[in-house]
Amino acid sequence: MPRFAFALVATAIAAAATAAGNGTPQPAAEFKLRPIGHVKKTDDRTLIVLDKQYQPGLLGLDGFSHVLVFWWFDKNDTPEGRSVLQVHPRGNPQNPLTGVFATRSPRRPNLIALTLSKVLAVTDNVVEIDKTDAFDGTPVLDIKPFLPGCDTADEAKVPGWARSN
Amino acid sequence: MPRFAFALVATAIAAAATAAGNGTPQPAAEFKLRPIGHVKKTDDRTLIVLDKQYQPGLLGLDGFSHVLVFWWFDKNDTPEGRSVLQVHPRGNPQNPLTGVFATRSPRRPNLIALTLSKVLAVTDNVVEIDKTDAFDGTPVLDIKPFLPGCDTADEAKVPGWARSN
Repeated sequence: MPRFAFALVATAIAAAATAAGNGTPQPAAEFKLRPIGHVKKTDDRTLIVLDKQYQPGLLGLDGFSHVLVFWWFDKNDTPEGRSVLQVHPRGNPQNPLTGVFATRSPRRPNLIALTLSKVLAVTDNVVEIDKTDAFDGTPVLDIKPFLPGCDTADEAKVPGWARSN
Repeated sequence: MPRFAFALVATAIAAAATAAGNGTPQPAAEFKLRPIGHVKKTDDRTLIVLDKQYQPGLLGLDGFSHVLVFWWFDKNDTPEGRSVLQVHPRGNPQNPLTGVFATRSPRRPNLIALTLSKVLAVTDNVVEIDKTDAFDGTPVLDIKPFLPGCDTADEAKVPGWARSN
């Protein structure tokens, strides 16, 4: 048996041991995501284009005025990009060094991005929104409706750097 | 060369072809997530316990009153759980059949969950929050600060089923 085959077996055994569980949270091996579509930007429109197979998942979305769009910071999907734990927010060295979980930095362990958008139209497998920070072609992971009752924070407090533009 | 080695090579070639890109969005093979910690619930407290290695990522989080906590619907991480595209919201058959992207259902292609929580304390690798829907032991994927300027939707509209309790 060649050496890499042994390595594969060892990995499989480790994964099975992790998954077994005993009531105590175990470090899960890994979770897998597949894009459900991508962002398409033209001069004057911003679209979320779902892969055709996911179109049934949009039924009723036109009843909501706003959506939370989850996408992947694909430009940073490298071990280096995912190992950063502190940054100067907004790339400004005058902002205090801050943990990535206290910023919206695209450099973070799990490259999930979130933006709130206004729904302009839902047609077939396409959701037209007002805007997003994501680039044209960015992989989209999920869409959720914005629910004012649970997504709104009254009197939210933020530190100084997050108040400036 | 054994047959499975050929299969590995074929997979690697396919992955490289996908990654090459030519301006047109390609269906990405897969993105990988690793939990950064887990939810710990006791009778009267709700904690996000990060793995120690991620503690530096919390620097400055105590300046925010609210956080968005991203976690994994790990109870539904099966091909069946991830293939559901339409549900009756809130498990109530009287609610209209609705696409999962128009609901917060835990059954959806990518099992990302999001809840907005109030930060009560940040101590070492632990964030104490007011509450979350997640169960004790649930894997946590990311924490982001709530930024009123971009996370707030004024006059958000929702359909009838989402207005009821």
